[in-house]
Amino acid sequence: MIPFYVTILGSSSALPTLARFPTAQVVNLNERFYLIDCGEGTQIQLRKFGIKAGKINHIFISHLHGDHIFGLPGLISSMALGGKKGELHIYSHSELKMMMEQLMKYMIDFTDFKVVYHPLNFHSQAVVYEDSKITVDSFPLKHRIPCCGFLFREKSNALHLRGDIVDYLNISIKDRVAIKNGADYHSPEGKIIPNQKLTFPSEPARSYAFCTDTLVRKQIIPIVKNVGLLYHEATFSNDMNALALKTYHTTAEQAAQLASEAGVTKLIIGHFSSRYKNINPLVDEARRVFPNTFPANDGDRFEIVS
Amino acid sequence: MIPFYVTILGSSSALPTLARFPTAQVVNLNERFYLIDCGEGTQIQLRKFGIKAGKINHIFISHLHGDHIFGLPGLISSMALGGKKGELHIYSHSELKMMMEQLMKYMIDFTDFKVVYHPLNFHSQAVVYEDSKITVDSFPLKHRIPCCGFLFREKSNALHLRGDIVDYLNISIKDRVAIKNGADYHSPEGKIIPNQKLTFPSEPARSYAFCTDTLVRKQIIPIVKNVGLLYHEATFSNDMNALALKTYHTTAEQAAQLASEAGVTKLIIGHFSSRYKNINPLVDEARRVFPNTFPANDGDRFEIVS
Repeated sequence: MIPFYVTILGSSSALPTLARFPTAQVVNLNERFYLIDCGEGTQIQLRKFGIKAGKINHIFISHLHGDHIFGLPGLISSMALGGKKGELHIYSHSELKMMMEQLMKYMIDFTDFKVVYHPLNFHSQAVVYEDSKITVDSFPLKHRIPCCGFLFREKSNALHLRGDIVDYLNISIKDRVAIKNGADYHSPEGKIIPNQKLTFPSEPARSYAFCTDTLVRKQIIPIVKNVGLLYHEATFSNDMNALALKTYHTTAEQAAQLASEAGVTKLIIGHFSSRYKNINPLVDEARRVFPNTFPANDGDRFEIVS
Repeated sequence: MIPFYVTILGSSSALPTLARFPTAQVVNLNERFYLIDCGEGTQIQLRKFGIKAGKINHIFISHLHGDHIFGLPGLISSMALGGKKGELHIYSHSELKMMMEQLMKYMIDFTDFKVVYHPLNFHSQAVVYEDSKITVDSFPLKHRIPCCGFLFREKSNALHLRGDIVDYLNISIKDRVAIKNGADYHSPEGKIIPNQKLTFPSEPARSYAFCTDTLVRKQIIPIVKNVGLLYHEATFSNDMNALALKTYHTTAEQAAQLASEAGVTKLIIGHFSSRYKNINPLVDEARRVFPNTFPANDGDRFEIVS
């Protein structure tokens, strides 16, 4: 299988700490890099964790709070200084374009690459990006301002041919491609051989859902249903339920309940309030509900699974 | 003597490196904190080096290039979250106010402290700040856009009384204060005792000058003449003289020549281009001209001397 993982660049909530930068993550599918959120210091974290900023061509921004965007001007400025070429696509609330265009005048002029802004839809799930290997959907979350989650889905893998049978039947290259994509085989003699006699199943598609900042939301369960890896914010522990509600955030227990109801394989929690010097109690709280929970720490790399 | 030093928060030029954040420094005079420039990640460096962001009430911004200002929104945002009170004064080009007011909408609302903007004069030296202990002047540098240096001068210290004599003469408290500030003594009998018979000299006033980003400039020599500590950018080594000229920066040798001609006590060089993985050659180049040169490294603390 081709490599597919996410690297945590920042795992704090609004106030960074010595160990945790504000929110940012990079999804890497076979050396194609997709940045999610861009808190202050993202370019520094990319460098620290050995990821070349210039390789990022797509940036997905959940919402326009400073701790998710204040790293953008510095990152783009450094991309320009680093000689980036082509296009950089940013998927965000439409206001970001205005903000960034205001800030451009404090950067060096660059002409070798172009920033293309794509406004997100905050009302319903929508495909925002697609290439030969992956689709990225946005879907609405519930925060104090418009906010989206993102769902990265590997495209269904091709079926595996049963080599002995297709060789025996002397099937042409063209027909083999069609069979790998699910077609039945029509022999020159007019016989139809069903696909499942000629193939083994493909590997299940892998998927990653990113949900921050948000109140816990029943509405996202069908969207993240059965994803392999779910990142969900857990700003507070459950004894601060009232504050979570007031600030439109989620507790560790709530994140775990959602992971459980959605039947995901693995849960990462993050966006921890700086009040927690030790986040083990939040992890323990989540694991009591959903044992396969792990904390996000800056620099951690998680395999994206099915 | 009361403590007076500067802590380097960032020593890179536009592109940060793993070891060097973009430009920012904090001058600390007896636990009053004055921030100079505010590159991305300044709030993180403050935390790393044990300086409470909320204690900073004055920020001096040399010029509006991103690597000197992109840490401001995050810093102010964190000050607000940290419950800062009172006033935060920012001394900068007048455009900064517009930029920051645009960015305020991406921060939490705060009412406990107020940001007060003070426009700098880019044409001549001017006092921009003064309190009981210190004056801060701005003075013009020569960069691609308007840019100022800053000169921090401790106010002249009071003279030391010759305790045996003033006691013998039974001088009143009120008169002692006047004598410490330089007055002669008029005795009840109408005799005038000159000040120098009653006092030892005060310690010489300490001073710090900050010069970045700039072409090397003869015009600043009289301004920084005899300062105790001079920080001067040295983006390049002298073999890149042509690039320094083109980009309005200074070489290590040029910075040292200026330090020598101005008769400063000690020189710090910084704002190193990211091309220098090892900055020892720049330090060596400067020391050949001005031996008392030291490199700025993030986290370094330099005593401000006379």
